[in-house]
Amino acid sequence: MNQPEPPGSGQELSRIPDITPLLNVLQALYPVSPAVESYLREHISTASVRKRKMLLKEGTYCEHIYFIVKGAVRGFVREGQRDITTWITVENQLVSSIFSLRQRSPAVENIQALENCDLLAMTLDDLQTMYERLPESNILARKLLEIYYADAEKRAYIARLTKAENKYRSFLLHHDPLSNRIPLKYIASYLGMTLETLSRVRKKFSSKL
Amino acid sequence: MNQPEPPGSGQELSRIPDITPLLNVLQALYPVSPAVESYLREHISTASVRKRKMLLKEGTYCEHIYFIVKGAVRGFVREGQRDITTWITVENQLVSSIFSLRQRSPAVENIQALENCDLLAMTLDDLQTMYERLPESNILARKLLEIYYADAEKRAYIARLTKAENKYRSFLLHHDPLSNRIPLKYIASYLGMTLETLSRVRKKFSSKL
Repeated sequence: MNQPEPPGSGQELSRIPDITPLLNVLQALYPVSPAVESYLREHISTASVRKRKMLLKEGTYCEHIYFIVKGAVRGFVREGQRDITTWITVENQLVSSIFSLRQRSPAVENIQALENCDLLAMTLDDLQTMYERLPESNILARKLLEIYYADAEKRAYIARLTKAENKYRSFLLHHDPLSNRIPLKYIASYLGMTLETLSRVRKKFSSKL
Repeated sequence: MNQPEPPGSGQELSRIPDITPLLNVLQALYPVSPAVESYLREHISTASVRKRKMLLKEGTYCEHIYFIVKGAVRGFVREGQRDITTWITVENQLVSSIFSLRQRSPAVENIQALENCDLLAMTLDDLQTMYERLPESNILARKLLEIYYADAEKRAYIARLTKAENKYRSFLLHHDPLSNRIPLKYIASYLGMTLETLSRVRKKFSSKL
């Protein structure tokens, strides 16, 4: 995103971050060196974003990577008048524009809070500086990227399935906790089906339980 | 894949690798340290795979990461009797099962040569050992994964578009060199449209030039 909006406009930045949830996620992958931990503490801010507010708008520059402490977020793109949900994610996940990690160009996608969110935020400039100054941070990043890349492949796979039941089965397999939390219209958009089709498939699945 | 097939069965492994094309790709991202270069020379084999042969079959274990020196390769999954092409890639690209990089579980996807291919191959075990022994290799891997992850997002985006013309326009934008090289049936499958629809859209696009 371009600039953090001023307090009161739906997003607030403060400088008293509790980064424990992020450290827990990283430690589970690879030991976080004291230098990396101290860099994170120094360069992470907290942000609160209200439901429905945008974290990133297409055409603007993505300047941050976020860690979701609480809440749910979706990515979407536009095709004509339609918006297409490309991912939905919740607590303990990182969120940014993957295209902006390598090169600064205007974002092609939008990122929106689906619930009131508590976030940790770091600028992409600070992230790059960390990679350069603290080479061991690249090990963590490599492991995180392997996970997120595999998730992107799973999303591409679900998107390519043609039968609504197969799509919903794959969704439950990978995203079960979202199925009773996220408004159905976003799940339907993510799965590339109408709300009516999704409701019909869900009824079929619940009657099988 | 499980085991390299013996010579004569369509795939041949040898121990005299010229890894220059791979080094060129890596050097363009980040300086390759002498230790990494020497590790690669020691642990890379060459493989030749004939058109239509499988590099990986679903249900088997992916044991290698490949670099395509010459040729074209596709990934596909099955939905019932149908096969769905999930990516198509050519020279100077790496190919593996992304799901196997982190955990050894049977592959869910298939990888097939679309042309006679010359490959460089390294086992995933040797790749992991390199990450551990030569931490600077994680910087290269992090940069490569950022690129491949962004590509996976682009593929997911194309798969979610609903209008055949938008899909083909995105395909040309990201994969123009493939459009006159890869058999149309695979491009149609990748774009989630029938061969007839693809031919109609291509005719429309070429008449606009």
